[in-house]
Amino acid sequence: MNIDDIIIAREKMKGIVHTTPLDYSKTFSKLAHNEVYLKLENLQKTGSFKVRGSYNKLISLSAEECKSGVVAASAGNHAQGVAYSSQMLGVSGTIVMPKTAPLSKVLATKQYGGQVILEGAVFDEALAYALELKDQMNATFIHAFDDEAVIAGQGTVGLEILDQLPDVEAIFCPIGGGGLIAGVAMAVKEKNPQIKVYGVQTLACPSMKQSLLENKPVMVDAVPTMADGIAVKKPGQIPFELVQKYVDDIFCVDEMEIARTMLMLLERNKLLVEGSGAVSLSSLLYEKIKVKEKKVAAVLSGGNVDMNFISSIINRGMVESGRYVTFTITIKDKPGELQKVLSALAELDANIQTVNHQRMGKDIYPGYTQLEISVETKNHDHIQQLYQALTKKNYNVEMSHF
Amino acid sequence: MNIDDIIIAREKMKGIVHTTPLDYSKTFSKLAHNEVYLKLENLQKTGSFKVRGSYNKLISLSAEECKSGVVAASAGNHAQGVAYSSQMLGVSGTIVMPKTAPLSKVLATKQYGGQVILEGAVFDEALAYALELKDQMNATFIHAFDDEAVIAGQGTVGLEILDQLPDVEAIFCPIGGGGLIAGVAMAVKEKNPQIKVYGVQTLACPSMKQSLLENKPVMVDAVPTMADGIAVKKPGQIPFELVQKYVDDIFCVDEMEIARTMLMLLERNKLLVEGSGAVSLSSLLYEKIKVKEKKVAAVLSGGNVDMNFISSIINRGMVESGRYVTFTITIKDKPGELQKVLSALAELDANIQTVNHQRMGKDIYPGYTQLEISVETKNHDHIQQLYQALTKKNYNVEMSHF
Repeated sequence: MNIDDIIIAREKMKGIVHTTPLDYSKTFSKLAHNEVYLKLENLQKTGSFKVRGSYNKLISLSAEECKSGVVAASAGNHAQGVAYSSQMLGVSGTIVMPKTAPLSKVLATKQYGGQVILEGAVFDEALAYALELKDQMNATFIHAFDDEAVIAGQGTVGLEILDQLPDVEAIFCPIGGGGLIAGVAMAVKEKNPQIKVYGVQTLACPSMKQSLLENKPVMVDAVPTMADGIAVKKPGQIPFELVQKYVDDIFCVDEMEIARTMLMLLERNKLLVEGSGAVSLSSLLYEKIKVKEKKVAAVLSGGNVDMNFISSIINRGMVESGRYVTFTITIKDKPGELQKVLSALAELDANIQTVNHQRMGKDIYPGYTQLEISVETKNHDHIQQLYQALTKKNYNVEMSHF
Repeated sequence: MNIDDIIIAREKMKGIVHTTPLDYSKTFSKLAHNEVYLKLENLQKTGSFKVRGSYNKLISLSAEECKSGVVAASAGNHAQGVAYSSQMLGVSGTIVMPKTAPLSKVLATKQYGGQVILEGAVFDEALAYALELKDQMNATFIHAFDDEAVIAGQGTVGLEILDQLPDVEAIFCPIGGGGLIAGVAMAVKEKNPQIKVYGVQTLACPSMKQSLLENKPVMVDAVPTMADGIAVKKPGQIPFELVQKYVDDIFCVDEMEIARTMLMLLERNKLLVEGSGAVSLSSLLYEKIKVKEKKVAAVLSGGNVDMNFISSIINRGMVESGRYVTFTITIKDKPGELQKVLSALAELDANIQTVNHQRMGKDIYPGYTQLEISVETKNHDHIQQLYQALTKKNYNVEMSHF
């Protein structure tokens, strides 16, 4: 494959996928000491860039292949991308999703016209079943990243950035299996090798980073992460080779950094971005590299966050930013004691969210009671002030993050 | 005032406020049976349209007035607009906010350089204090809506829509004090009287609608609403007259409709829109008027939602859309009973969120225990299926929303 494949992919998908905005952000520019532009793939059809790759793959199939339909396995964005692309092209699309996939993603995939089969407890089991099905149905399997047509489709993100910001100096891009960055890096570097292309992963699953170190795609142990969309334990062979050739460096961010970034995007920019989509901006905000005063673009690759999950992300982000804290305080079990604590907090402008007051529990002595108070705070300093105010009054205080 | 004031306002604010996108939405077009375009003022500087009006007002002040500074009272978006505009113009801006204002709004106002004074328990008290201050400081008071320069500033939203979608046939706009719609309606009707302009309020506070009926601005009784930004009990005199002259009709939406709309905007469009900002789209989705197959624009006027509030909005929206339900079930207090209930729910693909199991409570007989199970569901039909499955097994079941 070469850059022409990406240019042609872009032509083919006109009118089917959005040219997403590349928005300058004053807030993030200030925080990251760069001119930061956000490539809003969360506003893409189906809520993520994945539709670009799957559409480009499907449109490359022969009439006969189209007739037999396609099969994919995914718990998330690829499922929606394949379903949408199939519908657009009138191809029968079967998507195997693990039984544990969020209901909202299953519903969305069905809404885009995909035939959803729930099979297996984890992704690998769903994948195994999808490969079986593919053989049974004589269908084409649509890989989420280890496929040249898919990579060419994802690469259109890179071409758009070059058009929208011709003097961009560096592009930051999330890496899971590697399809997105492989395409973007090829598009960008073949047009202008001066532009830096950086990949971002999570510390929870740094598979591409590790693979580069070992000079071949390797499987890493992964722990759960908010950025589940890029928690791919082993990168694809084709993306790996392109990353090796074109990508300048890979950085890792942690969960705290992801949560804070998501919260800021929601609160300040009114944009819902999923964990995997936020890592590129996280790497800039938490200065994983000494890039200063450059024109940089961060690809916010998707926005599909399960609604049930949002509150916990917000809570996590609030805690991490010092905007929320829970104090556990042991007080005497007599009238007026609770009120004293509350007034100490009120004096310092802490806004109370919840109060739990209980007498029973293994660490509570007779005659005492335990208070659990969650308060909204201004920042970490404010939390320290509150803590000191309470301890000064001789309360036994513990602070906890949840 | 006339349309030239709005045209000039637009010139003056170039480079200071954004020309926000007017995005076509396929999803909402389908649901509302119209071609729906969303005017994304939630992506405006300071997170709402308010900055347009305050900036236009501030830039109209004399050098002497600028020197003495400005004073405003607001618990929300106007505060941020005035703070930002003051900072841009190097004017000292004092904003009185009630002590009950959300911490996040206070912090945002301070971040934009506003001098925040917390005074009064409710808005009216903050306002009274602001007016006192204004006299003491010999400063200029910046009204949130009852001011021609402010209205001219808000009207620029209308001019932008006309540029972005010249063949627009109807515009839907939230109404609180009336500043936004007054400006928009004047801009639009003076350019093309064929275009319909509709206002939207909540059933909780339909002050402009009532005022039109009574032919003068009247004060209504209001109940709390998710759309707190437009919960203005009495519209302004100037906006009232312009609405009377230019606006075609006013519709009201209820809390359920607002919650569902906010949830859909977040889940499908990845956009955070505040309650007040969502009502315009709500009126289209819930077909408050028989407009069909027209090109319509809904002004999503702001996106400043307190983060602590988001989870409750999501929950409310999930419940209202049949995506979440809580069953209270009385079961025998013996081993295995909880498991039976859970398996009945699992058989029908309900995803369990929380389980509370308690023996104490005034309605619980000895030998019985009460289960409170919250489950994620697909839709209202799914909830009915679950309910029937449980009652068929002779459980005493109650359904509740929250």
